[in-house]
Order: sequence, then structure tokens, then C-alpha cells
Amino acid sequence: MKAYSQMSKEELLALQQELEAKYEDVKSKGLKLDMSRGKPAKTQLDLAKGMMDVLDSDSDMNCEAGMDCRNYGLMEGIPEANRLMADMAGVPKKNVVLFGNSSLNIMFDTVSRSMTHGVCGSTPWSKLDKVKFLCPVPGYDRHFGVTEYFGVEMVNVPLLATGPDMDVVEKLVAEDESIKGIWCVPKYQNPTGISFSDETVRRFANLKPAAKDFRIYWDNAYSVHHIYDDQQDEILEILSECEKAGNPDMVYEFISTSKVSYAGSGIAALVTSEANLADVKKHMFYQTIGHDKVNQLRHVKFFKDMDGVRDHMKKHGDIMRPKFEAVLKVLDRELNGLEIGSWVAPRGGYFISFEALDGCAKAIVSKAKEAGLVMTGAGATYPYGKDPKDSNIRIAPSFPTPEELAIAAEIFVLSVKLISVDKMLDQ
Amino acid sequence: MKAYSQMSKEELLALQQELEAKYEDVKSKGLKLDMSRGKPAKTQLDLAKGMMDVLDSDSDMNCEAGMDCRNYGLMEGIPEANRLMADMAGVPKKNVVLFGNSSLNIMFDTVSRSMTHGVCGSTPWSKLDKVKFLCPVPGYDRHFGVTEYFGVEMVNVPLLATGPDMDVVEKLVAEDESIKGIWCVPKYQNPTGISFSDETVRRFANLKPAAKDFRIYWDNAYSVHHIYDDQQDEILEILSECEKAGNPDMVYEFISTSKVSYAGSGIAALVTSEANLADVKKHMFYQTIGHDKVNQLRHVKFFKDMDGVRDHMKKHGDIMRPKFEAVLKVLDRELNGLEIGSWVAPRGGYFISFEALDGCAKAIVSKAKEAGLVMTGAGATYPYGKDPKDSNIRIAPSFPTPEELAIAAEIFVLSVKLISVDKMLDQ
Repeated sequence: MKAYSQMSKEELLALQQELEAKYEDVKSKGLKLDMSRGKPAKTQLDLAKGMMDVLDSDSDMNCEAGMDCRNYGLMEGIPEANRLMADMAGVPKKNVVLFGNSSLNIMFDTVSRSMTHGVCGSTPWSKLDKVKFLCPVPGYDRHFGVTEYFGVEMVNVPLLATGPDMDVVEKLVAEDESIKGIWCVPKYQNPTGISFSDETVRRFANLKPAAKDFRIYWDNAYSVHHIYDDQQDEILEILSECEKAGNPDMVYEFISTSKVSYAGSGIAALVTSEANLADVKKHMFYQTIGHDKVNQLRHVKFFKDMDGVRDHMKKHGDIMRPKFEAVLKVLDRELNGLEIGSWVAPRGGYFISFEALDGCAKAIVSKAKEAGLVMTGAGATYPYGKDPKDSNIRIAPSFPTPEELAIAAEIFVLSVKLISVDKMLDQ
Repeated sequence: MKAYSQMSKEELLALQQELEAKYEDVKSKGLKLDMSRGKPAKTQLDLAKGMMDVLDSDSDMNCEAGMDCRNYGLMEGIPEANRLMADMAGVPKKNVVLFGNSSLNIMFDTVSRSMTHGVCGSTPWSKLDKVKFLCPVPGYDRHFGVTEYFGVEMVNVPLLATGPDMDVVEKLVAEDESIKGIWCVPKYQNPTGISFSDETVRRFANLKPAAKDFRIYWDNAYSVHHIYDDQQDEILEILSECEKAGNPDMVYEFISTSKVSYAGSGIAALVTSEANLADVKKHMFYQTIGHDKVNQLRHVKFFKDMDGVRDHMKKHGDIMRPKFEAVLKVLDRELNGLEIGSWVAPRGGYFISFEALDGCAKAIVSKAKEAGLVMTGAGATYPYGKDPKDSNIRIAPSFPTPEELAIAAEIFVLSVKLISVDKMLDQ
């Protein structure tokens, strides 16, 4: 196929006419499709149906520690759930504390606690003139939302195929004491799907931040969310790398079963050094008498151990694979060679990231919407909702069926083509 | 029986000898009893066994709103659970937002949010020189813990048989703009068991606080926790009273099913005006994608409606009644007329509050401990753990069996007598 940039004005005008006819045709169908949200499909939730059967009125409700899960106590979680989450993170049990149903909530709490009480005895951030976070971009809008809400200034850092640009990260954290954190999704990153290379993880562990209360916010949301059985990304375990590097307290890792069991009814954990945990537990003591231990018990009874989790995730992969492939197939077939966009086929996670021509993302999303396809808002993958090049679009293929996705992808590429032609003609 | 204050020195010495012999006898038994914690007994938790059966792998997991409870969405809770909690509070559904498993957590969040973001647009408390809370005493240690943790100065207010001394409350909130809240347990108060009179509730609703961001923290933890079927306390519904008084936004009410279904695996709600809820939801939007809707659904399927809750609470009452009576019987029999302590027989809740002679509470708790009975630490019912008169002791009769409680109560009264005699002899 001929790249749009190589086409003459006449060719572009002819193409535009042809595309507009197709677009009007699709639009007239009055479709309603949604590729906006990283939300599991019903078929995925049904995979954990059995979770509703593992406890009944005859069940022993005591945990390993001999405590009744239905009563107060064990603020840090029941030992067996603690172990399951430790195994998921690949760390010893002593580095894990369980929270409620959402890792986002733990991240929010972590920033909130730092604002009011500092980090391991440091000055509360609310007493400082300026607090900054580094934000590898494109990234996860909910992360940026939390820091924006607390008035933290966000600094964009380019995301490369190997992870954040570590030259930039190393330099900034070393020279600016107001930089207190960096948001990371190290595996099957949201939205690009890339995983951090070993070198990137090691450079993270060896950071020399100016701020003693600097922490890496390691949102390992997709650690077991592979699409393929035989092509899985693996990343280095960050806690032990930090320890080796003499920076044992530099990372907070967040994990959950939100897209393993149920979204919003899973269990979530904070994974970090014992010193950090001691600091966090002081806070938790006032915050709660404990989280939902019955749900923790339910998870352990259902999954049993990490083998159980991995087996379960294969089934998720089997559902996700055709969905990703349905979208990727259309992107490949329709856009390869046109030089109007790029994307990477991820091996896991929940998203495909599309880089359109500069200045086209908003217009493409809006064009798609007009034809009945809802996409994640352009700009959402950047702090403050501002994509400086207006080029990134997040595609979320999990919720619709593969059939719906095939149609949705057609509308998407049609929108990409139309807006790109417009751009060419405007130049 | 003769009041200790009427006894001669000789009588007191003879009594002391007799009591000490009894005490040594009890102590030698090496008992291990615990009346320290407001924790439901296993028999109470078993009442909700059926809750583990209401959902299974064949269940329809959609809520009334047509959304799958296992997926993201519906941040404010599923409509049917929202309605159940609204009925529990006696308010319209529009005044309720569901949170996670713990109302303490909502209270903590509410103070934390006020510190970082203020209340409905007011200056964040962390930016103020001084923030104070009124604390009716004796009260709940976890309340005082939250405010102490955030550096809020706590001001004691006497608790009368009708509720907090409203002359004091009215005066203080009217003249001091740094007073931003007051902790209240309006029904079957922790630890006294008293309920606020209608006049008290109306005076609360009609407060004229100097601070626009003053809120009443109405922890209605024991709203349905009656001990008797035919003698139940009723309190006025505070939201509508505040509305009538022209102070619609002045109260945050906190409720949960922690001691209805399971302690720590229940559902909890914030009940307040629509304006306050709009403010809170802005915060929640960044804090969470939503709470555990499967557990909300489970609660609605099990209790169905408020009649279901009330029927269930009768069974709790049947278990609690003999426990309270076991303790009260011993107190009555052994201490009436001695003028060395006072208490009120509550009609509900989880505690009996004992007022010893001034300066005796710590010594009594320590004496009881020496004989194998753990009580709540003396002072715990006061801010900063400091009971200025060292006289209040909280008795928590829910967890042990009635038989254990009868023995525990004997140890307790023996300790009270011994320490009181010591005090008399010291004078």
C-alpha cells in the first residue's frame, strides 16, 4: 500500500471521497460499540463462577491462624491469602500486607498518607511548597488522577520500548528533591503493552534520588495477565533488586486480583520492605480494624495457590487472545504501509496503544464516536489529559466480543484514514 | 449493705483481709477471661451462616440497575444495597453512598479528606493552625485515635444521661471557629449504653457553629442492636432534624452491618445531605473505581429488607441479653449500696460502663488482670487515653459465654471492692 505522504493531492482527494462514502455508510447503520474501558467481559467473570461455591454455611470459617474470618482481627490479612499474594509478587510473605478490594485505593491511600504524615518520618508533603511525580507517558489516567487530585505536579517522561527513558529518570530524581515518586506499570504497561527490560528494572533499583522519601510506585497490575501461553513477558522482581542495590525501601508495589477473579470484588495488597510496612501499618491501625477476611479466604479456597492462579489466567488468555487478534488483524490489513499510525502487538495486559499522526488523536476519537464507536478519550493517557502531540489513542478490546471488535476496528481504521487524509490535505 | 464510706477503719481492715483471701483464692485458679473487646461471639456470627449460601455459581449476579456486580462500575453502590442502608438509617436513598467493609474507615477517610481538601470547598484543615474536635466522654477510643492521628486537638465534653451536655456543646461551637467536629454515638452509646434524648438531637440540629465546615460525626453503630424486644430506645433521625433546622449539611452519619452480619466483612455507608455527598463523591472518584458489589448483593439477598434485618437482630439480642444480665446480676448483687461504683443497665449496644471511685479505674483493671481477667485499658474511653478522674471502666460482655461472664464479673467486683477499700484506708 502506498503511504499517504507519497500521494498526490488528487489521489488524496479521491481517497477522501471514497472514505467518506464508506464512513456515511457505516454511520447510517447506527451502531453502538465501546472500546473505551479496560473492563473484563462477562465470559471472563464467569471463569470464577466457582468462587461463589467455595464457601457455604457448612464451611470452616477459621483461617490458618485459627481466627474466625468473620470476626475482627488480623489487620494485615489472613496468612494464607498473604502467602498467595506474596507468591503472586514473587516475594516473601513478610513483605506483604493485604488491603481491601482495590489496588487503586492503596495507591490513593499511599499518596494521601504521604501528604498528611510523610513517608517513614519525612515532612508531610502538604507542608512542602512543591511535590512532583514523574509520569512515563503514555500511561494510566487513574494514576495521573490521584496525583493531580492532591496537587502534585506531574512531569512527563518518555516511555520507550524498554520502559521509561532511564537517562531522563536518573537525571531528574538525582537533581530535584521535590520529586517524590514515579508511576510505573512495569509489565504489559497501560496502555502500550510493553514490559520493562531487565536493564530498566536494575536502573530503577539503582536510582540515587535526592529526596529520601522518593518511592517508585510499581503498579504491577498485569503480572499474570498473559495472552499467549508460549510468549510471555517476564520482568525482574523489583524488591530484591532494590535490596541488592542498597535501596531496600525505595519501592511500593501494588497488586490485586481485580482482573484475575472479579473486578472490584477481588483482594489487593501492598508489597514493600519491612521498614515501609511498619510505617504503613501505623497508619492502617487508625484507618481500619481490618479488611474483608471472608473474601480473602474465598480467594484462597478457590485458587489454592499460584499454580491455580496461572491455570485460571490461561483461561483469561484464551478469551482475550481472539479479541486482541481481531483488532490487530484489521489494523495490520488496513493500515500497514500507509504511514499514518503505529502500534505494538502486546503479549498481555488489557490495551493496545495507537500512535496516530501528530494532531490527529482527538479528531479520530471524535470521528469514531460519530459513527457509534466509543473510545477512551484522547489525551487520557497523559497527565492533565494533555497529550502534547495529540497522537495517542488507547484501544481497550476486553469488553466487546471478537465479532463486535472486528466491526469496531473497521470504524476505527476508517476514522484514522479520514482524519489522516484531512491532515495531509491541510498541509 | 453498708456503704464503704460509713465503715470504721476496723471494719475496713477486716473487710480487706477477707477480700484478699478471696482474691488469692480466685487468682490461684489461673483463669483466662477477656471482657475487653466489643467483638461478636461465634454464636452471633453463626446467625448469618446462610449468607454464605445466598450466592452460588448459578446465581444471577446482576443488580437491579442491570449491571454485573462482579465488574467495575456503580461507585456509589448497587441500588438495592443502597436502599437497605437508607432504610436502616431512616433516610431517602439519595442521602446514602456505600463504602467498603468498615464505617471506621469512612470516618478516617472523612477526617483525612478534610485535612487535604477541606469540607465542601473550605480551607484544608492541614493549612489551619489549629483544628479541634469535641469529644463527649466517656466515648469510643477508635474515634479519638483517628483525630489524634491527624493532630486534631480533642476537647472533652461531659456525657449526661440524655447525651452530651448541650449547654457546653452549643457554647463551644458557637464561639470557637477551630472546632470542626464532634464525635457522637447517639444510640446505645459506646461505652455508656445511653441514647440521646429527642431534645439533645434537636439541639444538635439547631447548633450555630462558628465554623462553616463544622460537622457532627454521627456514628450510629448500634441503631438496630437492641437487647430487649419490648424495651427499645428510639432516637430522632438527625438528617431530617438538621434540614428542618436549616442546617441540612451539618451532619455525617456512619452506619454499617459490622455487628449485624459479620465484623469486618459487612457493608458500610455514609449518610448525609446531597451537597455533602457531591463533595465526597468528587474524592471517591479518585480513590476507588468502586467497592465490593458482590458483598453488597450478598447482603441484600440474605436480609432482603429492614424487616429481615430486624428479625435477625432479635436473634442477636437473644444471645446478648443473658450476657449483659450475667454481668449486671453480679454487679447488682455485690455492689448495690456500697457506694463504690455506679453503672447503667443498657437496653442495647455492646458495653456496660462502670464508674468507679475517683482514682481507682487503673488499679481495678490491673487488679483484675492479675487474677486472669483482661478488661479494656482504663483511660481508653477518654481522648489521649487520659481519664482525668481515673474512674471509668468499659465492660465488654459480648465475646465470652454467660458462664464465663459470671466468673469474670465476680473477679471484677472483687477487684473493685479491694481497690475501693485500699482507697478508703489511704484517706
